Amino acid sequence: MKIIVDAMGGDFAPQAVVEGAVEAAREFDIDIVLVGDEPRIKSLLDKARCPAGKITVHHASEIIEMSEPAATSIRRKKNSSIVVGVNLIKEKAGDAFFSAGNTGAVVCASTLMLGLLPGIERPGIAIICPTLKGVSLIIDVGANIDPKPMHLLQYGLMADAYFHYILNKPNPRVGLLNIGEEETKGTDFMKETHNLLSSSHLNFIGNVEGRDLFSGKSDIILCDGFVGNVALKVSESLAEAMYEFLKRNLTSSIMGKLGIGLLKSGLSRFKKETDYSEYGGAPLLGVNGVVIIGHGRSSSKAIKNAIRFAKEEVERNVNSKIIEEIQQI
Amino acid sequence: MKIIVDAMGGDFAPQAVVEGAVEAAREFDIDIVLVGDEPRIKSLLDKARCPAGKITVHHASEIIEMSEPAATSIRRKKNSSIVVGVNLIKEKAGDAFFSAGNTGAVVCASTLMLGLLPGIERPGIAIICPTLKGVSLIIDVGANIDPKPMHLLQYGLMADAYFHYILNKPNPRVGLLNIGEEETKGTDFMKETHNLLSSSHLNFIGNVEGRDLFSGKSDIILCDGFVGNVALKVSESLAEAMYEFLKRNLTSSIMGKLGIGLLKSGLSRFKKETDYSEYGGAPLLGVNGVVIIGHGRSSSKAIKNAIRFAKEEVERNVNSKIIEEIQQI
Repeated sequence: MKIIVDAMGGDFAPQAVVEGAVEAAREFDIDIVLVGDEPRIKSLLDKARCPAGKITVHHASEIIEMSEPAATSIRRKKNSSIVVGVNLIKEKAGDAFFSAGNTGAVVCASTLMLGLLPGIERPGIAIICPTLKGVSLIIDVGANIDPKPMHLLQYGLMADAYFHYILNKPNPRVGLLNIGEEETKGTDFMKETHNLLSSSHLNFIGNVEGRDLFSGKSDIILCDGFVGNVALKVSESLAEAMYEFLKRNLTSSIMGKLGIGLLKSGLSRFKKETDYSEYGGAPLLGVNGVVIIGHGRSSSKAIKNAIRFAKEEVERNVNSKIIEEIQQI
Repeated sequence: MKIIVDAMGGDFAPQAVVEGAVEAAREFDIDIVLVGDEPRIKSLLDKARCPAGKITVHHASEIIEMSEPAATSIRRKKNSSIVVGVNLIKEKAGDAFFSAGNTGAVVCASTLMLGLLPGIERPGIAIICPTLKGVSLIIDVGANIDPKPMHLLQYGLMADAYFHYILNKPNPRVGLLNIGEEETKGTDFMKETHNLLSSSHLNFIGNVEGRDLFSGKSDIILCDGFVGNVALKVSESLAEAMYEFLKRNLTSSIMGKLGIGLLKSGLSRFKKETDYSEYGGAPLLGVNGVVIIGHGRSSSKAIKNAIRFAKEEVERNVNSKIIEEIQQI
């Protein structure tokens, strides 16, 4: 299996990406193609003592910066690592594409170049997130910031297939992220989406609130990409802030310091359970190909885990399951 | 000073409200008027051994339920605790109104009955929230779910006055909650709001992201009421979930259990710093009167703290500061 990796994407690229890719190549049975500035990548690969033959470099002379508008940038920068990388997937020169770069540009390039699955009008980024009762799937967290109600229904159908066939839970509960549980709550967009979901064959449990993201009340949480993105970043921020609050409080007394020694393994498990980089990547559902999106702040560890996730997504054959699900309607 | 309290508002009303009010009357130098079902409130007051003379009851025969649409409910239920309570403020029979009931109905009744401050077109709910570097003020978290860019500018002006005169920090940094830092990010609404804020005299630092809610990067965070409400509830949910994760991890081993004993005071400080009920209430800025909104799930402790907050808001004379600020433009 061959994973195409955007070596120039993310705040710490190319270094963190190359290091993460080298670790992934060591640990997993895959080949990796790093797309980007060949001389820079090769020099980093030499330093990282890359395992022979498992990583190749595909040169791309341009970089789409985080601040560039998505549609214009992919039109103007045909030689960017994102456009070149997506094109490799299109030409079947690789099985999956991963980027921690400009999310809008990845979404736009994937949509235009790979096309969409039958019945899907817009792709959505799905996050699998730990809850007190297992996991939940939140879609969309940033691909589509001004969606139509019909797009949220399509996200629901894709997430349903994902939960059923990939997470092995048929008939998952579907909730709509709103500011109150009652169907009278929210904007006109929310009310229209609520109606559409109510008359679908999905196991729609109605509106859920921000507090239900981690409660496990709903297996699938549908939202527009703007709200989903804010919610996701608030979560990360709060997890970090709470860890910091906790450390301050626990180390402010001698008894606390003594206690912390006894708790080390519990605390590191706690940190692991709430650490974004353990998950690494999020699937872009709806495009005709396996595209995984990483966090802009991805560390080499996050990159490694995202590449592992890309490999698993290819093995799981997600898209054929989604197509099956949608054709049954 | 006299605080008018909606005894029928909130998931645990009237019991939690009456108990919280009794505690507040014991601890603080205030009079309280409980508005709602007189027989029920009086029987609860008898049980709670209320200090003589500090709490009176004002009968209101109707209740606006959480699920009722705001505008219709206040028009139809003239004898509801919310409408009667706001009217008491309007008639100067009290200095502040507190409710943990239907937020939309409180916002709507306050706007229509008390009127708005000069130059303000829509009120906004502000939350003062702890960060790693102090506090930040987030507005709006649920009063106005479909705002115009001009409303967010007005929220910025009110928050600026609040930060300057109440939190004693002149020229606070103002950020706009968006899905990326670059000014090209977000919906058309976000871009228009960004332009408006850039050309104002506010200390506008540009877009901030969900992750900046707790980082302290910005003193004031502006957002529409839908996004703000989701962000707030995500935070509460995650704080609770993390506390639960932590407890599970810490008590899963003998060493962990030993450690937890040594850490008790640190952990309870941690819980206190992240516990919503310590703050209790959020001011509805922009209405011509002091109106404090509580969480639907308010416990008696949250109610007590919200009443204390209402007292402080009256003492701080917030509205005259906001009017001063806006007239200077």
